[in-house]
Amino acid sequence: MRVFSFYEKASRAFHDYPSLSKLIVIFTVSSGGLVAYSDSKSYHNVGSSQTDFKKKRVVVLGTGWAAMSFLKNLDSSKYDVQVVSPRNYFAFTPLLPSVTCGTVEARSVVEPIRNIIGGEARFWEAECTQIDAPNKKVHCRTIQQVGSGGKEEFVVDYDYLVIALGARSNTFNTPGVEENCHFLKEVEDAQRIRRSVIDCFEKATLPNLSEEERKKNLHFVVVGGGPTGVEFAAELHDFVTEDLVKLYPKAKDLVKITLLEAGGSILNMFDKRITTFAVEKFSRDGINVKTGSMVVKVTDSAISTKEMKSGEISSIPYGMVVWSTGIGTRPVIMEFMKQIGQNKRRVLATDEWLRVEGCRDVYALGDCATINQRKVMEDIGVIFDKADKDKSGTLTVQEVQALIEDIIIRYPQVELYMKNRNMKNVVSLLMDSQGDDKKSLEMNIEELKSALSLVDSLMKNLPATAQVASQQGAYLADCYNRMEKCEENPEGPLRFRGEGRHRFRPFQYKHLGQFAPLGGEQTAAQLPGDWVSIGHSSQWLWYSVYASKQVSWRTRVLVVSDWMRRFIFGRDSSRI
Amino acid sequence: MRVFSFYEKASRAFHDYPSLSKLIVIFTVSSGGLVAYSDSKSYHNVGSSQTDFKKKRVVVLGTGWAAMSFLKNLDSSKYDVQVVSPRNYFAFTPLLPSVTCGTVEARSVVEPIRNIIGGEARFWEAECTQIDAPNKKVHCRTIQQVGSGGKEEFVVDYDYLVIALGARSNTFNTPGVEENCHFLKEVEDAQRIRRSVIDCFEKATLPNLSEEERKKNLHFVVVGGGPTGVEFAAELHDFVTEDLVKLYPKAKDLVKITLLEAGGSILNMFDKRITTFAVEKFSRDGINVKTGSMVVKVTDSAISTKEMKSGEISSIPYGMVVWSTGIGTRPVIMEFMKQIGQNKRRVLATDEWLRVEGCRDVYALGDCATINQRKVMEDIGVIFDKADKDKSGTLTVQEVQALIEDIIIRYPQVELYMKNRNMKNVVSLLMDSQGDDKKSLEMNIEELKSALSLVDSLMKNLPATAQVASQQGAYLADCYNRMEKCEENPEGPLRFRGEGRHRFRPFQYKHLGQFAPLGGEQTAAQLPGDWVSIGHSSQWLWYSVYASKQVSWRTRVLVVSDWMRRFIFGRDSSRI
Repeated sequence: MRVFSFYEKASRAFHDYPSLSKLIVIFTVSSGGLVAYSDSKSYHNVGSSQTDFKKKRVVVLGTGWAAMSFLKNLDSSKYDVQVVSPRNYFAFTPLLPSVTCGTVEARSVVEPIRNIIGGEARFWEAECTQIDAPNKKVHCRTIQQVGSGGKEEFVVDYDYLVIALGARSNTFNTPGVEENCHFLKEVEDAQRIRRSVIDCFEKATLPNLSEEERKKNLHFVVVGGGPTGVEFAAELHDFVTEDLVKLYPKAKDLVKITLLEAGGSILNMFDKRITTFAVEKFSRDGINVKTGSMVVKVTDSAISTKEMKSGEISSIPYGMVVWSTGIGTRPVIMEFMKQIGQNKRRVLATDEWLRVEGCRDVYALGDCATINQRKVMEDIGVIFDKADKDKSGTLTVQEVQALIEDIIIRYPQVELYMKNRNMKNVVSLLMDSQGDDKKSLEMNIEELKSALSLVDSLMKNLPATAQVASQQGAYLADCYNRMEKCEENPEGPLRFRGEGRHRFRPFQYKHLGQFAPLGGEQTAAQLPGDWVSIGHSSQWLWYSVYASKQVSWRTRVLVVSDWMRRFIFGRDSSRI
Repeated sequence: MRVFSFYEKASRAFHDYPSLSKLIVIFTVSSGGLVAYSDSKSYHNVGSSQTDFKKKRVVVLGTGWAAMSFLKNLDSSKYDVQVVSPRNYFAFTPLLPSVTCGTVEARSVVEPIRNIIGGEARFWEAECTQIDAPNKKVHCRTIQQVGSGGKEEFVVDYDYLVIALGARSNTFNTPGVEENCHFLKEVEDAQRIRRSVIDCFEKATLPNLSEEERKKNLHFVVVGGGPTGVEFAAELHDFVTEDLVKLYPKAKDLVKITLLEAGGSILNMFDKRITTFAVEKFSRDGINVKTGSMVVKVTDSAISTKEMKSGEISSIPYGMVVWSTGIGTRPVIMEFMKQIGQNKRRVLATDEWLRVEGCRDVYALGDCATINQRKVMEDIGVIFDKADKDKSGTLTVQEVQALIEDIIIRYPQVELYMKNRNMKNVVSLLMDSQGDDKKSLEMNIEELKSALSLVDSLMKNLPATAQVASQQGAYLADCYNRMEKCEENPEGPLRFRGEGRHRFRPFQYKHLGQFAPLGGEQTAAQLPGDWVSIGHSSQWLWYSVYASKQVSWRTRVLVVSDWMRRFIFGRDSSRI
């Protein structure tokens, strides 16, 4: 990650938006203060459109977090880049729950992908229908009719393919979900939810309705107690109590929000203190949280749940359901997995360098793939052989120590295990399985196996979050940028099942914390280490982090001014 | 119209948006200046929902300019008001062309109707399917499914009905228009056009397209040279040249905008100087203006026109067509006209007091109705009789002068005629048809007829503009507010065909001028009198007038901040 000084940032802003310099000149001159001026040229180079055959062709599928981060960090002068996606914009998805209630406008959280990739790269507004890895081709279909011949199909050739297609919402094949529920993955979903909330209020205030019917229309159900579901429930509660009750005074006492979670608690990836706080806050707000309650069917007017403990099935009438339970694999990825022999897996697997297993020059990152971390136990034999330099059949502490850095880089679970057990160094790790008495250590392969036997149990898949996708994109771009350099001077760990070193270090995720806005300007934040912050201060932290993480100066200013608009005028309830 | 001082305005703003006072307190305290504080209570009274049977029930159909202006000015404590409309918001339609290109956001030009009518009035989100004047009932149908029974129908009773349903786009039955063209009447239309413009650019930059196909996709056709069509063409040109060419560099030289007008000139309701300027400006900008060219057919890929002079028919391929030629009567109004015996008319007729001809207690205003101004010649006999006080069979100048004020109020065409001919007073009018020699005038009915014979020729229907609708709404609300008072003390002109006076003065339109934004910050303004203003200064005038005319503080701030956003960041091209 590059760090910019204020001046660099400002000058980049001038390049992106030439009129900003005009404006700033006006402002600063009139205030008699510092005059900043940047002789702005257009940032979007009208680059040569001829394909440069010396450059390798990189095709990127998708315009979500992973793709955007990859494209933003890639040195596009080194590659001939083409991007294929049905959406010609990147959306800052963590703010989607805010878009559903108009706290932030849809247009403030999107940025045209062409602004991100610049004039050199090419973008095709189409969806990928088939990946043909053996022939290095991608089959695409436009999302709109072109001419009178309907949707057009075309093929794009690649040297390297970067799959960042994201995932689809997972209904777990629950009957009626697809037809009757709202999802919350795309900007359009958020806009639809917003209209639907207003619809429910308009319906509930029509004449000639029974009290029962009014209550039904104002019963909002959120399925899934993860951060998205929780945040949506909180946003909806604020929208209703802060804005809608003024316009629909009769609806006030009829509104009910229910949050259903099949597991034992909401926000289960967060610290327990946060979960407890959230449950108490929701209970004070009148949001009905039901855990251990699994949705088994949704009709057009009622939702049926099964209590996990009692097995009891009940049905509740609703006005609107938002389904936010988890993610599933897209059909085009499933097809691709069959092609490359991954048909037994549930998710597309890559190695630790984000390379798809089973084919060449194809990379996958973000929600559409999982890193298949190599187990220590699978390689214990080759590790032993590499370490045993004198071929004595036993390892000394010195021999293990000489390799430990490479082992930790290649198998990060080893370090995690040592941290978890408060082990200071490799000696403690090796000693652990032996008796205390063996001070001068010499171990055979069985003893090494026994020492490392529990290490692999700590391996966990990375969560399907924007943070992971974004770090993967930046990592992969960095690899691409230094491809030639690292070919000559490999900087990765030792190859245990081969000669020499790996070109790059494997991808490693750094968890920077997570937010869960709980409504009423209360936000819970879980930060690296054991730091948990709850309350107003976290809300400001959330505001500032989210404002700073916006993809461009434009979205940054827009999001902040949306917050100010909301603060002053409340949210709009027009049905558009 | 009420005039507010700054303090009154500010205090109203505090009432509308309680948090504004918080904010201003913070700002002013921190600047050490004047501290303004308003102890804000909620502006939206949660009024008694019980129908007060002493109050007359006023039902308003529509939430456009006429309805909004009526509702805003009506003293809602005097009536039991119900509003029926499929749109729960008012839209500031003159900015719709700006919304099509993202100069202003859709949400900035709308205001929830419930904010306008306050808590006392009731709003039903439904469309009116039938007006039953004999039984004083309105039949309505919800626009959404309610419960599992589909759309619901209900009936609303009224004592007074105010029809402000607006008009629909008129296709003049041209084949293919309904299916293939965009209209520009509703907020949704503007949003759809915005997506469609981006679609055309995305399509034109797809791989494997011929130059011909790219050009076709980037050919934008606007049908209708009125203010809306002209403004949209100008907005589109700015969007393309200022923003889109940066993102779609290859599209730059392929874009073509064509403006088709069947009549002899564009902007034909404006001064000739403005028309000439607009044509020259468009020609410099490369916008292709074709007058005397009537559209005869639209298919999904080409538009056929007929040259009015030569009769030649030609067909041009297009990417997108926006149809903006005129307005037609809505089906529900046509049904209603049959019912009340107006089936021979093209538009619903009202008298000068906006009362629908042929039924009682029904008023109509805005684009859905026309005032059927009574002709002087129809009433010439009764006018003569009223004026001839001494029943001498001839009128003296004194006798005419005694009545002239009432005549002018009842028949405004008389005043218009006198102004047009530069006549100072009624003597000149009566003298005009006589010889100059007759100084002491005494005229019989034939001579009076001859003097007034040309007066009715000056009668013109009012244009279908927001300005007319808005003035009619305010006028009608004023009549409703003073209904009882004016029953006792009529303030209208003498009834010529009856006894006494009319309760109210008839509606009179005051033309306050008209703007035609021509792109590139050039705006033509035609103001009262003969004042024509063209150029940058008019653009600022336009900005300030349009900003000040916004319906609420919220929309005012939003529109102005949208303009600033556009100035700094350009328009967004994400396809949402």
